[in-house]
Amino acid sequence: MIRIAVDCFGGDRSPEANVDGALLALASMSDLQVILTGDEEKIKTCLEGKKYDSTRLEIVHAPEVIGTDEKPTDAIRLKKDSSMMKAVRLMLQDDSVAGIVSTGSTGALVAAAMLRVGRLKNVIRPAFCPVLPTMNGGLVGICDSGANVDITPDHLLQYAIMASLYLENVYNVSSPRVALLNIGVEGEKGDELRKTAYQLLKNCDKINFVGNMESRDLLSGKYDLVVCDGFGGNVLIKTTEGTALELLKKIKKDIFSRLSYKIGALFMKRMFMEEKAFMDYQNYGGSVLLGTSRVVVKGHGSSKATAVMKCIEQAYKMESSRLNGKIEESLPEYDKRNA
Amino acid sequence: MIRIAVDCFGGDRSPEANVDGALLALASMSDLQVILTGDEEKIKTCLEGKKYDSTRLEIVHAPEVIGTDEKPTDAIRLKKDSSMMKAVRLMLQDDSVAGIVSTGSTGALVAAAMLRVGRLKNVIRPAFCPVLPTMNGGLVGICDSGANVDITPDHLLQYAIMASLYLENVYNVSSPRVALLNIGVEGEKGDELRKTAYQLLKNCDKINFVGNMESRDLLSGKYDLVVCDGFGGNVLIKTTEGTALELLKKIKKDIFSRLSYKIGALFMKRMFMEEKAFMDYQNYGGSVLLGTSRVVVKGHGSSKATAVMKCIEQAYKMESSRLNGKIEESLPEYDKRNA
Repeated sequence: MIRIAVDCFGGDRSPEANVDGALLALASMSDLQVILTGDEEKIKTCLEGKKYDSTRLEIVHAPEVIGTDEKPTDAIRLKKDSSMMKAVRLMLQDDSVAGIVSTGSTGALVAAAMLRVGRLKNVIRPAFCPVLPTMNGGLVGICDSGANVDITPDHLLQYAIMASLYLENVYNVSSPRVALLNIGVEGEKGDELRKTAYQLLKNCDKINFVGNMESRDLLSGKYDLVVCDGFGGNVLIKTTEGTALELLKKIKKDIFSRLSYKIGALFMKRMFMEEKAFMDYQNYGGSVLLGTSRVVVKGHGSSKATAVMKCIEQAYKMESSRLNGKIEESLPEYDKRNA
Repeated sequence: MIRIAVDCFGGDRSPEANVDGALLALASMSDLQVILTGDEEKIKTCLEGKKYDSTRLEIVHAPEVIGTDEKPTDAIRLKKDSSMMKAVRLMLQDDSVAGIVSTGSTGALVAAAMLRVGRLKNVIRPAFCPVLPTMNGGLVGICDSGANVDITPDHLLQYAIMASLYLENVYNVSSPRVALLNIGVEGEKGDELRKTAYQLLKNCDKINFVGNMESRDLLSGKYDLVVCDGFGGNVLIKTTEGTALELLKKIKKDIFSRLSYKIGALFMKRMFMEEKAFMDYQNYGGSVLLGTSRVVVKGHGSSKATAVMKCIEQAYKMESSRLNGKIEESLPEYDKRNA
């Protein structure tokens, strides 16, 4: 059995999407147990009339909710009875709880991960690693997408090692092609951070480093993993999502500007739905945090049930593949005095 | 008369696109003169059989070309007879030459701008400011898109002032809404650079600062100008271009996967062409460099004639609106010892 705690509050569609996502996950993974944290009455209301294996579902009451507008460090200290912190504490107090999934405040979850959960041996800082679809049907991971904004080249090397293992173990990508996000492909491009990181990555025999990547090639399918500082990674993923959504919205609007377009669109309805689904992050789960001593998965605030289910699946696979143990075995010794 | 030097070599479609672009510009601006630099014979071949006002076109022979793979500082020092450096020298030696347009090596052009052309009074570093179309039919400027990767909050304040004036004078945007690119909209988001810059921008009465912007909102039409470090700006613009192009490419491919899609696409052909044109940077000119003591415009390496024409038009408008003078009048005193 793999046990995952699911924070059922704090997301835009909580608690319904979180509870339904947990039920979807229970149905698809037979040796999964979920512990739902949050207001017990509300969770029970969501469960009413639904079929699920009740021996694999547990509710732990937590009356408070951390809002996205609260200061993260205050929130995790003061709201001990929040659904998020209850899930975190459950995991820390019970070794049989493998990980947590939350769609609540990113800041609070990162703070809880850093200050309460702690890091794996030799990890400088945990980092987010979301995954996007590429245009040739593959996937590309982005690490870090926003956990750390002030970093050194050593952080980038660690991201490359941790996220390569993640892609290998959770997505079956063998020998992931790792690129460094930069403003040009030549090795000497970028600022000091990028120049030094390039050399570190090139000389590391634990990863398959293929060089610098310009952001326009993210979806090309030429790379399996892009490592970057949290600021650049955040811009990268949000620009990709934003551009795709805005463009599809524009096409939808333009279709209504002419009768012939409307007729054409009738023939292509299914295709447009597929394009929309293709770019919908709901279908690709959440951002896992790599480098924390236990499994932490952050779902998008607007996650629907399917997205929550994917997040639980990610947590499940991280645990079943023993990812954290492999990360500890692979990371080179790091002298924290350098951090 | 406004005289612009056009570097006719170094782009992917040079010299044809550059020469044809210059002819288009001559036809549309009656008080424009162009000076084409580059291999005289090749330029003359491009001009053969074409109609233009020869009293407003001059050729200055320059036998060498700077390649995009050459080290910028070496190239501008050693290739004095290149089409790019000849154009730069023409401008520096002759006050009547208002600016230069080039589709050649970005690195060499930036190096020439910094080391040969020099800065306006109080400018710390010149910065690129390309402009993209927004989804509601407007425009959004991005400053800096890659000229400077290591910066301070003062740089960002200067970008905001310079680029606001640029948008007002060249694109008739009144009181441009300025945003700071960040990883969240709240004022306290981001690293030290962003936090300090936020306060500087908020307290500056020369600009219309509206707060932080997350990259997913770039094309929303809510902002006229986004200021950012060159690394972030480079990721922002290249991700936007890349995602839009990859998505349109995918749609095109998917259309051929089913007969009904192919039929539908016949009704929508014109729409798809318009979407493609909408996202095509060829239609929006080049990246102007703001803060150099003379006008410098960088066209995309793959610029076609229409894009070169737009670049010349940008240079023309910068000069005719006396933009550089206005920048000097607006920039607060800056003590270079702080740089």
